[in-house]
Amino acid sequence: MGLGPGDPSLLPPLARDALSRAQAIVGYGTYLDLVPAELLVGKTIVETPMRQERARAEAAVDHARHGTATAVVSSGDAGIYGMAGLILETMERRGCHAQIPWEVIPGIPALAAAAARLGAPLTHDFAVISLSDLLTPEATIRRRLLAAAQADFVTVLYNPCSTRRTTLLPEALRILAAHRPPTTPVGFVRNAYRQGETIWTTTIAKATAHGVDMRTIVLVGSSSSRLVGRHVLTPRGYYPATPSDNNPGTFDKNPVDTGAEAL
Amino acid sequence: MGLGPGDPSLLPPLARDALSRAQAIVGYGTYLDLVPAELLVGKTIVETPMRQERARAEAAVDHARHGTATAVVSSGDAGIYGMAGLILETMERRGCHAQIPWEVIPGIPALAAAAARLGAPLTHDFAVISLSDLLTPEATIRRRLLAAAQADFVTVLYNPCSTRRTTLLPEALRILAAHRPPTTPVGFVRNAYRQGETIWTTTIAKATAHGVDMRTIVLVGSSSSRLVGRHVLTPRGYYPATPSDNNPGTFDKNPVDTGAEAL
Repeated sequence: MGLGPGDPSLLPPLARDALSRAQAIVGYGTYLDLVPAELLVGKTIVETPMRQERARAEAAVDHARHGTATAVVSSGDAGIYGMAGLILETMERRGCHAQIPWEVIPGIPALAAAAARLGAPLTHDFAVISLSDLLTPEATIRRRLLAAAQADFVTVLYNPCSTRRTTLLPEALRILAAHRPPTTPVGFVRNAYRQGETIWTTTIAKATAHGVDMRTIVLVGSSSSRLVGRHVLTPRGYYPATPSDNNPGTFDKNPVDTGAEAL
Repeated sequence: MGLGPGDPSLLPPLARDALSRAQAIVGYGTYLDLVPAELLVGKTIVETPMRQERARAEAAVDHARHGTATAVVSSGDAGIYGMAGLILETMERRGCHAQIPWEVIPGIPALAAAAARLGAPLTHDFAVISLSDLLTPEATIRRRLLAAAQADFVTVLYNPCSTRRTTLLPEALRILAAHRPPTTPVGFVRNAYRQGETIWTTTIAKATAHGVDMRTIVLVGSSSSRLVGRHVLTPRGYYPATPSDNNPGTFDKNPVDTGAEAL
């Protein structure tokens, strides 16, 4: 299940109820810290380090197979680069995915939290790419960056820099910059809706990896995105590309059928 | 602000509080129906039809400029194909984006709700494409589909079919099928977490547009995705590509640093 960005005000009742009902809560320490303290009381807490996702999944499935109501927590949404896949895969390998009742409880993903903080960058088609090269060959990451650049997707970068890996973000920015105007906005959101939240925006011509870490989401606009003050806007096309003047009253009597809002 | 899929159990406290504090609530009728009834009592309700997004945004900004606490509601996340962009653009055109206090309140996006219902399809890089051609040229949509296909992104399709537009989804499936194994899973989620929820999965060789409408999210796996029972799994790479046997105890003593969970 996903905890969202970490602020309890962004934890929906469905997730809170699942935590409340759980007898065991399994997660990486940093994520367990995001669980409201009152929901941990009296529970079996299984804390595993960052590098032991497989052991974490095995432990969770062990508990569930013994009939323990078990919640595995990820920050953001558990399905987006989160633990949901590994849990399902572990159940499959152990032949119990059809026996144990399980569900994925969605959360507010880091990409939605970052976008909200930046304004409205994701109103149009977008690509989501993790720059972590630990489970994905660098060549695949580069190929996806190039595809996103060439097809003019707004591009969301997860895991942009680690202490060890610092060169892929500058390279990603260069790949994207080669296919966008130099004024294309880039937004950075570190620790969205958490203590120490930091938000900054710049243009792709000026963007650097300075201040970026694994807790930062980097969001690069498409060729139609622009800065509005310090915010990022990707216009959806309701108005002509350039705001013409300060005469907002002149919209169509029969505005176009957009058919394009989120479902 | 985003209402999430529509079930009150997926509406986080931050969104509920904003609705509670709002003096005016603005939205398309179908979205207003998703607002818990008790939060509408005593409010000014501004309901505009589907085709009048600009009028809706103007009305919302009018209210806000008069000092009325105003909430504009979208389903899912307001930043993902939702109203957030048009509101910011309208404020910019009227020169009041720096004067009116405003914020985007994130919600659970349709893509996360659909993914949760399907299992774990989004554990890896993905592209999000709307098939609505009303504000986007068809050539741009095709270019993005081809890029997503070639770069092996898991692909999420919003607005896959309308009553008028029925051919673009079959074409999208053909474009993706040309670059994926015929066994690649495709998941369909109609009305996620709402009354009449329908979920079905198949392979890309067999997928058709039958039963798909504007309220359906279509999710096409990458070349590494597979069906697990009726669920869709995109393995993240913690285990070898093919589950070897039923010997789950043999994981590394020092599992790889994934560095790849959601932030």
